[in-house]
Amino acid sequence: MTPTVATAPSTDLDISALYAQVQQFYAGQVRHLDTMRAEEFAASFTGDGVFDHRPGADPLVGRTAIAAAIREYQNTRHAADPVQRRHWFNMLQVFPQDDGTLRTEYYAVVLQTRPGVSEPMVGPSCFVTDVLAYEDGELRTKFRKVSPDYVV
Amino acid sequence: MTPTVATAPSTDLDISALYAQVQQFYAGQVRHLDTMRAEEFAASFTGDGVFDHRPGADPLVGRTAIAAAIREYQNTRHAADPVQRRHWFNMLQVFPQDDGTLRTEYYAVVLQTRPGVSEPMVGPSCFVTDVLAYEDGELRTKFRKVSPDYVV
Amino acid sequence: MTPTVATAPSTDLDISALYAQVQQFYAGQVRHLDTMRAEEFAASFTGDGVFDHRPGADPLVGRTAIAAAIREYQNTRHAADPVQRRHWFNMLQVFPQDDGTLRTEYYAVVLQTRPGVSEPMVGPSCFVTDVLAYEDGELRTKFRKVSPDYVV
Repeated sequence: MTPTVATAPSTDLDISALYAQVQQFYAGQVRHLDTMRAEEFAASFTGDGVFDHRPGADPLVGRTAIAAAIREYQNTRHAADPVQRRHWFNMLQVFPQDDGTLRTEYYAVVLQTRPGVSEPMVGPSCFVTDVLAYEDGELRTKFRKVSPDYVV
Repeated sequence: MTPTVATAPSTDLDISALYAQVQQFYAGQVRHLDTMRAEEFAASFTGDGVFDHRPGADPLVGRTAIAAAIREYQNTRHAADPVQRRHWFNMLQVFPQDDGTLRTEYYAVVLQTRPGVSEPMVGPSCFVTDVLAYEDGELRTKFRKVSPDYVV
Repeated sequence: MTPTVATAPSTDLDISALYAQVQQFYAGQVRHLDTMRAEEFAASFTGDGVFDHRPGADPLVGRTAIAAAIREYQNTRHAADPVQRRHWFNMLQVFPQDDGTLRTEYYAVVLQTRPGVSEPMVGPSCFVTDVLAYEDGELRTKFRKVSPDYVV
């Protein structure tokens, strides 16, 4: 292995640890979303979690409302057009806050694959901001605002 | 730099170190794949590595078979339609196992660019599971199963 | 939490810390680019930074030239066709160099969303190499070469 430079002080080790932790958390969270595990996805939010998922719609507040929205998607839009959704997050910034929460900003896009069609539909492209909090040592989303790029 | 919260115990440092290591490993591995370096790509698998790359096809077993598949792609499909492929992995989860291997799950998509055409073809979107093992301190893929979303 | 394997020696911790640091740096840098903050984007390069951004065009040298190129894009192409651009980087490799700089290689693609159109244009897909350097403890791009896949 190439000798590494000594430029990562302990605070950078901390942010690096947090950074990977957040990436792993998001990967698990979208797995629940993309397989429509409504309760598990809702449980990745704090009990009072706010999911401001769509401009013009009321934010979803609390796990019951978040789980219900997943089930409603499953029973209506997905039932009529059973795409496999894959949420991709990227270009993540993690900003530790003084109160122990993490503010994050990232890009998101959805790939939607119809059965038998190898090329997915791509979009929308979104900008997302989160506040993450620890509950019993586990990351949870306390607040999420999704801003689709096409809504101006 | 913002003061970071003291929420990353040593086990999280370990998983964070592994997480970045796996990301870097995958980046190198797909570079071999996308430039059709057949031997180097095959060498990123363990000697007995299994590459279950396509539903309905037999899994590729061992480096000789894996390298042969890359060369066959190069000599047939790529020769007829010389796209530049770019494999993108995302939403990675790394699960350390008690036996010292790592189980991973992630999304993958291929971008394929034709000469002179700025917009790439996108797809297929896939879900991938790997088992990674260390050989002489280096990560290798011991097992990979690729499940394209369009195959149901 | 699953017990983690003891396979991440201190050099891997260093590379992991650097890896997350580079990811976070790129996320901030593209945020400036995608919101057309010309001065802030230029400031993410070293004073003598080189941005070889397009085959056939002269490389941009220095922050003044880089900022001017962003403003020119804003005043011409973006004014005529106000897409929201989102630069996505992926499959990053970080190679620490003996002189304290970091060489990186990664894939990049641009998603461009037109107002009111939920599906973004995708492309071009590119291969990028950077040299990153530390200035006052902060990462800066010293050199960047962007190679679009469609240019052969």
